[in-house]
Amino acid sequence: MEHGAKILFAIFVAFVAAQIGKEIAQRLRMPGVVGEIAAGVAIGPFALNWLPKTELPTLQIFAELGAVFLLFAVGLETRLGDLQKVGKESSKVGVFGVVLPFVVAFALAKALNFPVNKALFFGAAFVATSAGITARVLQEFGVLSRKSSQVILGAAVIDDILAMLLLGVVSSLGKGGFDPVSIGFLLAQAVGFVIVVGIVGGRIMRRSSKLMDLPLNPNSALALSLMICLGLAFLSAQIGLAAIIGAFLAGMLVAETEQRHSVEKQVISINELIVPFFFVVTGSQVDIRQLANVQMIGFVLLVTVLAGITKFVAGYFGSSTLGKGEARVVGIGMIPRGEVGIIVAALGLQSGAFDEGMYSVIIAMSLLTAIVAPPLLQIALKASDKMALSTTADLGLGISKVNGSDDQT
Amino acid sequence: MEHGAKILFAIFVAFVAAQIGKEIAQRLRMPGVVGEIAAGVAIGPFALNWLPKTELPTLQIFAELGAVFLLFAVGLETRLGDLQKVGKESSKVGVFGVVLPFVVAFALAKALNFPVNKALFFGAAFVATSAGITARVLQEFGVLSRKSSQVILGAAVIDDILAMLLLGVVSSLGKGGFDPVSIGFLLAQAVGFVIVVGIVGGRIMRRSSKLMDLPLNPNSALALSLMICLGLAFLSAQIGLAAIIGAFLAGMLVAETEQRHSVEKQVISINELIVPFFFVVTGSQVDIRQLANVQMIGFVLLVTVLAGITKFVAGYFGSSTLGKGEARVVGIGMIPRGEVGIIVAALGLQSGAFDEGMYSVIIAMSLLTAIVAPPLLQIALKASDKMALSTTADLGLGISKVNGSDDQT
Repeated sequence: MEHGAKILFAIFVAFVAAQIGKEIAQRLRMPGVVGEIAAGVAIGPFALNWLPKTELPTLQIFAELGAVFLLFAVGLETRLGDLQKVGKESSKVGVFGVVLPFVVAFALAKALNFPVNKALFFGAAFVATSAGITARVLQEFGVLSRKSSQVILGAAVIDDILAMLLLGVVSSLGKGGFDPVSIGFLLAQAVGFVIVVGIVGGRIMRRSSKLMDLPLNPNSALALSLMICLGLAFLSAQIGLAAIIGAFLAGMLVAETEQRHSVEKQVISINELIVPFFFVVTGSQVDIRQLANVQMIGFVLLVTVLAGITKFVAGYFGSSTLGKGEARVVGIGMIPRGEVGIIVAALGLQSGAFDEGMYSVIIAMSLLTAIVAPPLLQIALKASDKMALSTTADLGLGISKVNGSDDQT
Repeated sequence: MEHGAKILFAIFVAFVAAQIGKEIAQRLRMPGVVGEIAAGVAIGPFALNWLPKTELPTLQIFAELGAVFLLFAVGLETRLGDLQKVGKESSKVGVFGVVLPFVVAFALAKALNFPVNKALFFGAAFVATSAGITARVLQEFGVLSRKSSQVILGAAVIDDILAMLLLGVVSSLGKGGFDPVSIGFLLAQAVGFVIVVGIVGGRIMRRSSKLMDLPLNPNSALALSLMICLGLAFLSAQIGLAAIIGAFLAGMLVAETEQRHSVEKQVISINELIVPFFFVVTGSQVDIRQLANVQMIGFVLLVTVLAGITKFVAGYFGSSTLGKGEARVVGIGMIPRGEVGIIVAALGLQSGAFDEGMYSVIIAMSLLTAIVAPPLLQIALKASDKMALSTTADLGLGISKVNGSDDQT
């Protein structure tokens, strides 16, 4: 196959697989994401192997853009003011959700007699929640405006900043040196970025949204919004945060403009094309052959359960002011690790702290949490709504929308 | 810069440059495409060099997808029936437009004492019209439903089939062997593909458009349309045609369904993101340093003028039944060579028939025709409308729409 044809083939196969997986999952009353990830597992290099190896790096870039635009869309549905209202809960969930998993994982590693270096990376891999997967499930169920969703999104931003710092500390400790000044600088930069963009940017956008219609391009609001998204995603990655954090902030900025509704609609169309790659590629990284060994399965399960419980507990107690039902939603919403865990594992492998086996365990844990969380989240949302229903007359949001009404045109 | 940040930077810079270039061009009352290509020249590796070298292959893939989705959108605005009505004119324009440039270029090459092999590639590089550039200009001016536009689009399909065959013949002659059976097989395959997809596919789509709403996904019509686009683009590339031919056919198929209008709107949003990469990347390939040599400039200009005139004459006489004004539009519309000329030049270089100098000449010619044609096309459209106005009361289409009304949401 000639190269031009090959990449089109890879894109076509990945896209079709995602659609089929999503449809099957939704027919089985599961979140669409689960089907998309499962489709990725099926066509990935460790199973059917339908994706040409040479095209995987390109698909990876599509996946990253998919995550960027997904969080951009989520940001578009999020109001800065709403997020500030749940600032206390978000902070608690974010901080607990980093400290608890790290401490527990580090303790387990020491108990297993891992060297310090390996134990540090092991702990770091437990830390970062993948906002992408939870956000998509919340979006799919139409519950992004719920308080628990706001807490999750705010916590994901804080979580990501802390995870980045921790990774910085772990990496420099691993290399033998630890420089508190440069770590402090990293923190200041990250916090400064989020605050400047969120607060100053928000003010600028509210005042100048008329300017977005000035260019001759009839779709100028969309074009400018895409520029903001790509620009902040780049800046965010540049200072060491996840690109999706910048994209999420960009979405919130555009949400402050008058053109938010038209842009939101248009981004839905873009995301219909690009987001599936994020989930399919995530799934394609699962090496199911690793699970052919009983001892391995046991260790993966142990690690996954631990990763899940620590995040759940941190999320649940961090947001207990919202009530039991909603706190449960937050706890489960923080469970998926996804791509961030994979990045930590890759860094651990590179630095020599991890061997291939440990690398696979972390990858498997990251993906298992990502696969398990969406159905659990669905159950928690339903349960929370039932609780609300039985105590008040407030029907709440969401459940009537479950199954097949995620994005409307 | 870390890789994730680097690719985001490249995408951001290319996208912003395209928007700025487009805006400036439109303010100067030129087609937006000209500005987008110029922006590509400016930020490309031979001028400002703002695009990281390592990211160029990825941008190239974005560019190819941009061309694919552009032609898909053009196909969405094209009715199969309309295209069949101008079949005679399209065929004449397509065939003349391949034969005349090839013969004239081959004669020039022989007059300059080129060896046969080099002369054949030289001739082949004159042949294929780049439908992408003309299509975008026609779309920008809102004149895709005009008869002359239909002739151009139909001719571009025929042109591409013939160009592919010619390239097959030239390549096999260059390698010393010429196998009429395999060339005949190639022809049968290409013609069969277009006929089966266009006619049988059209019928299926008309009958089964209700099926597109069956999946649970509320945007299923868009998702299925994207699958058809990607699938046919792949198949088209796989049998040796340009991917954009398959995408164009896919667009025409979707145009036969009931969901055509909603899909059309949604594809406009996708194209706002992806199409600019096609033009920026095309521009970025211009090595302006090559033009620092007077002799070189002279030869490039001679070749460009010849390439322009031969296509114009073929288009003009092939569509003379439409009247002088419209025939002129067709003639100019067939001039741009763009990416196809670049592919031929690359094959010539690979096979050893071209040296670096000749390669640059062909690239420069392809891009100059692409840059020169849009403003000429704008003039021809206006002139043709004036002619129509002075002879009949029919105000025609288009001119009132020139400047800033290409895509409406």
